[in-house]
Amino acid sequence: MREDEFLKRVVPFFKQDKARVVVDPGDDCAVLKYTSGKYMLFAADQVVSGIHYEYDMKNLALVGAKLLKRNISDIAAMGGNPLFAVVTVSASSSYERLEKIFKGLAKEAKKWNVSVCGGDFSGAPRKNTEAFSLSIIGEVDKKNVCLRANARPGDLLYATGAFGNSYFSGHHLKFVPRLDEGIFLANGFTKAMMDVSDGLLLDLQRFCDASNVSLKLDTGKVPWRKGTKDLKSALTDGEDHELIFAVKPSSERKLLKSWPFPKVKLEMLGVFEKRNGKYIISDLKSGTNLLKEYQPGYEHRIG
Amino acid sequence: MREDEFLKRVVPFFKQDKARVVVDPGDDCAVLKYTSGKYMLFAADQVVSGIHYEYDMKNLALVGAKLLKRNISDIAAMGGNPLFAVVTVSASSSYERLEKIFKGLAKEAKKWNVSVCGGDFSGAPRKNTEAFSLSIIGEVDKKNVCLRANARPGDLLYATGAFGNSYFSGHHLKFVPRLDEGIFLANGFTKAMMDVSDGLLLDLQRFCDASNVSLKLDTGKVPWRKGTKDLKSALTDGEDHELIFAVKPSSERKLLKSWPFPKVKLEMLGVFEKRNGKYIISDLKSGTNLLKEYQPGYEHRIG
Repeated sequence: MREDEFLKRVVPFFKQDKARVVVDPGDDCAVLKYTSGKYMLFAADQVVSGIHYEYDMKNLALVGAKLLKRNISDIAAMGGNPLFAVVTVSASSSYERLEKIFKGLAKEAKKWNVSVCGGDFSGAPRKNTEAFSLSIIGEVDKKNVCLRANARPGDLLYATGAFGNSYFSGHHLKFVPRLDEGIFLANGFTKAMMDVSDGLLLDLQRFCDASNVSLKLDTGKVPWRKGTKDLKSALTDGEDHELIFAVKPSSERKLLKSWPFPKVKLEMLGVFEKRNGKYIISDLKSGTNLLKEYQPGYEHRIG
Repeated sequence: MREDEFLKRVVPFFKQDKARVVVDPGDDCAVLKYTSGKYMLFAADQVVSGIHYEYDMKNLALVGAKLLKRNISDIAAMGGNPLFAVVTVSASSSYERLEKIFKGLAKEAKKWNVSVCGGDFSGAPRKNTEAFSLSIIGEVDKKNVCLRANARPGDLLYATGAFGNSYFSGHHLKFVPRLDEGIFLANGFTKAMMDVSDGLLLDLQRFCDASNVSLKLDTGKVPWRKGTKDLKSALTDGEDHELIFAVKPSSERKLLKSWPFPKVKLEMLGVFEKRNGKYIISDLKSGTNLLKEYQPGYEHRIG
């Protein structure tokens, strides 16, 4: 079973308190009632040996850093700012290993001003395995919160950075979450944003499904990360941790003029349009149904 | 290395934002700035196959329920009320297994009015392993927050329920977290409370260390759970998930008179006193140094 199918079955088990939960499970973060001007954001992500990194890798500090950065990327996608985290680990590892990983996490937390304020340690049932889980609390001005469900027909699809080859290039460990970029974008330029973690095409499909729109994707414009060998890799490799977002055509000029991050490329990748029965994502030029042409991305499999 | 020693080394890596973090790591929950009248509580706990339950156990719904209840017990210990949770799982299990576990979690969440509003699924590197992690957000009236550090010499030590034999009796799966009891106690009867999860003696040691006090423990008064075979078991078996708390002698009578939970026994187990160099916990009658006499409890071992 694919991860999305799993979630479609499991999420309905859980009843949300509608008086407190503003946005249900399914976005990059849950959006919760908080103060009069702000929402609370709440999310969790994992880093597991043999899945998200090789147990025998050298620079273990990167494992701890990745754990936090994955979560910060989720906060960034909502236009928010991270505040607090708690971390759990189930491991059968030496203290020396865990110390390196936690030092990496602590250094990264300091950089982003996140207080890692609690957690839990447990053993693990098998030798040489580690499962880290981190949960993050953030906040966002109510007027700035960005949702997957807010893309509208006619909006332009924009993306930061480049896609593909994250694993072999080491990007999956060394990426810088687009936190400042997300906060900038949420402050007037977009209401619809998400983090690309499971491959551009799959996350675009989720974006379109949440907003009930279709998308014409200009595949020729998708920027390739160094070492990306073909379009398929750019569209379907995981762990890019870039932002994709919807921009009104009337805001485009101002966005491009005022973009204050010269090292982070912005690219217009397509146009959202009314949902239609023929395709969710088509190639802007050839009209090809892209979700038929490609296995859309990386999903954990259940069972 | 023992878990407490591990934490003593690792916790200082993490810098807390003093303007927002009211109580540092080390209590049952982190205590965070929130609204003018309330603190936010934030905690995380795990349930791991082969550690916290047997992979081949029958009633898998209990695994999901336990995951939430462990966390609710942490909120209860602060005098708080749980609100939101996110859950992660790293597993190589069938959908059918996970469905049962998540249904158990969902049912328990509904019972306690907790919105499980997000999470993450990942594969696992080994067959037949599961690691669940749940993080919980709660809130507590500022005037009611209970801390491990608040026991004072002369306070009486009280406990709910009974101790020992949690694992073989199934209590570790079937316990009811003392949430209503914690809220009642925090509303005027105690400022110092904690959850007993790693054995009474070890958690009492942590209580004394956090409050910088010593304790005379009336070992003859410690209630034994059904099937508990000796005092050692009552003092050192884990997963009781009872509350221990400090009561001013002047409040004792009112507490016993107004206690509204007839099915939950309250027992006075000892007296806190000034910290002294001879012992942290001694037997009230014999004067024996109890931390020398017993291996104080269950701790996960690192390395």
